[in-house]
Amino acid sequence: MKRTLEGTVTSFDPADPIFAMHKGGKLAVHSTVPLATREDLSMAYTPGVARVCEAIAADESLVHDYTWVGSTVAVVTDGTAVLGLGDIGPRGAMPVMEGKAVLFKQFGNVDAVPICLDTKDPDAIVAAVTAMAPSFGGINLEDISAPRCFDIERRLIEALDIPVFHDDQHGTAIVVLAALRNASTLLRRDLGDLRVVISGAGASGTAVAKMLIAGGVDGAEVIVLDSRGTIHSGRGDLNEAKRGLAEITNEKRTDGGIHEALKGADVLIGLSGGTIPEDALAGMNAGGVIFALANPTPEVLPSIAHRHAALVATGRSDFPNQINNVLAFPGVFRGALDARATRITEGMKLAAAEAIAGTVAGDLKPDAIVPSALDPSVASVVAHAVAETARREGVCRGSVT
Amino acid sequence: MKRTLEGTVTSFDPADPIFAMHKGGKLAVHSTVPLATREDLSMAYTPGVARVCEAIAADESLVHDYTWVGSTVAVVTDGTAVLGLGDIGPRGAMPVMEGKAVLFKQFGNVDAVPICLDTKDPDAIVAAVTAMAPSFGGINLEDISAPRCFDIERRLIEALDIPVFHDDQHGTAIVVLAALRNASTLLRRDLGDLRVVISGAGASGTAVAKMLIAGGVDGAEVIVLDSRGTIHSGRGDLNEAKRGLAEITNEKRTDGGIHEALKGADVLIGLSGGTIPEDALAGMNAGGVIFALANPTPEVLPSIAHRHAALVATGRSDFPNQINNVLAFPGVFRGALDARATRITEGMKLAAAEAIAGTVAGDLKPDAIVPSALDPSVASVVAHAVAETARREGVCRGSVT
Repeated sequence: MKRTLEGTVTSFDPADPIFAMHKGGKLAVHSTVPLATREDLSMAYTPGVARVCEAIAADESLVHDYTWVGSTVAVVTDGTAVLGLGDIGPRGAMPVMEGKAVLFKQFGNVDAVPICLDTKDPDAIVAAVTAMAPSFGGINLEDISAPRCFDIERRLIEALDIPVFHDDQHGTAIVVLAALRNASTLLRRDLGDLRVVISGAGASGTAVAKMLIAGGVDGAEVIVLDSRGTIHSGRGDLNEAKRGLAEITNEKRTDGGIHEALKGADVLIGLSGGTIPEDALAGMNAGGVIFALANPTPEVLPSIAHRHAALVATGRSDFPNQINNVLAFPGVFRGALDARATRITEGMKLAAAEAIAGTVAGDLKPDAIVPSALDPSVASVVAHAVAETARREGVCRGSVT
Repeated sequence: MKRTLEGTVTSFDPADPIFAMHKGGKLAVHSTVPLATREDLSMAYTPGVARVCEAIAADESLVHDYTWVGSTVAVVTDGTAVLGLGDIGPRGAMPVMEGKAVLFKQFGNVDAVPICLDTKDPDAIVAAVTAMAPSFGGINLEDISAPRCFDIERRLIEALDIPVFHDDQHGTAIVVLAALRNASTLLRRDLGDLRVVISGAGASGTAVAKMLIAGGVDGAEVIVLDSRGTIHSGRGDLNEAKRGLAEITNEKRTDGGIHEALKGADVLIGLSGGTIPEDALAGMNAGGVIFALANPTPEVLPSIAHRHAALVATGRSDFPNQINNVLAFPGVFRGALDARATRITEGMKLAAAEAIAGTVAGDLKPDAIVPSALDPSVASVVAHAVAETARREGVCRGSVT
């Protein structure tokens, strides 16, 4: 018996409908070719397959056309930062990675394979993923704790010629930028004039800060907080990733906690999992924006947030304006795979954010600044924008760069 | 333009029906749960999935019941010994690994995932497979060159608590033993009285020698040949694996080549890929057995082999008696997964061989000493025998050993 995410007390119960649904897992592999006759076997397997093997050995880029590699993504975790559960290990992480793979298939028609690694050593993770990379068309890093995730992602991007994308960072950042773009349109504000506070300096907080700045927010007016308070260049206790944040944000070196940060802010983005006290929200400018994205318990409940902001979003499906990565990652990878992109650039991420924002731009309402997480049309729009940008930027296999 | 396995000259041609069949690959992933509504999403993904994650984190063995891990096998290669093509690299190997995965699904309902590794370093291979092991219910090693394959398999078996099985060794050995069992029954001979020559001391030749001895053949009367001739303890040029063979075979230290080895032999098993001259076959005892298993070109064509042996088998589907691993590996892994076996023992392999032999035992004919490679009933019989043996031997998860 232990407390769950939802705060209820429960234990393993095979009769629980959730366990019944997960029995045997949520994924399966199937064949896309017939294999009923000797003739089939001689084409799909020996001796016919040898011709395909030899062609690929002579020109490795053919692996993306004549095997499933061109439509696959490895969903790789070490189980260190799973949902709000923390470090629950590679086996405990598997149900989430399977769920992610289901979403990849459903929305992006991407064949995703969960890879849960039994090591937390960044060197070993980089070595294992590099070794298995020929098996996949892309690598989606998932639920790897900060700051290790930054270094692991950077090293894999350098080592591999396929897209590597840490979804907790960039998937979140893309959808937050899309939502904030539409929010600023609704509020008739310029992104560049907004004062933005980001509570949380983990994987998602860091990436959101960078993406918003790349998307037009003025970095000087962004304040990011970690558990010790506002991040600024005067602090001596920052790791490398946070020193990087200090360089591009909080130009005025605002010191203190959430109360000091929110004074005069237009936007609050919660990515911390803690609680933000209402008296701190009271310091925000009128008519602003609150995105309280911790799951399943937002940093501020919408009923309270609405007292202090004009537009409110959460990560939950049972409130309006659900900011969920599923709006981004299936389309981002589908587009990257379609274009045979060798990496995912800032431009491709910005194009994804713009595409997501665009799907509801014609019908913007305070309770619909982003499309529904289950809207089946979003991923293909995102994929198209991402692929087009990749081609324009010349980051595709065979591109002349 | 290059010579292919079949000896014809060809080049990459997208219009070739074999390339057309392989376009986009031969595998896909699909979801086994519905994901149409918010309710579905809240059960298969957050927040519901957290309960399953927590239960597995508390009791890791649940990963085999509540994720797809319990039905999955990684088909792992480094691309160093693919078909008869040799070291064509991890990308060139992918079409074969996909084909293997298709066969796993078709015959064993096993969800197999091809993992092609971009390293030939045994330490790196062992580290990568060990790291990814929580993602799978078993590891099928494939097309890894000898003698590296022996060491890699041994180290992975020691490191992991899931079945590890190098199919080129044990899959072949199981089917050869099954075929030789039925051949000796037809010829009214005892396995223990047969003088057996194995041409080829790579992965399959080595494993076949050991398996036949474990199955009742007298090791003293087995002679294995490598490219330099018969293996015996008097040779000073043997690697560790071959020294091991010398200890258990060729007690009389017969020296020389295939002519000397075949003098007075009852059984020839070709696993070398070379050609065996007919004058060497002439030295065999009358009424014997020739298995010429090199693919696609047998060491001896059946028309010639029949002049010197009563029973003939090859690895090809267009001659009678096709000795093909597909009779073994889907059932072996299905049985091991069903029983939650932590390894694949000698007893389980012998049970598999007996089960395969048994499927045609009631109707033995010289041209049907093994079932058809496409017989859909074999794998479940093998799986049952393997699972039962695993349970009896107490090598299952949760067994009291």
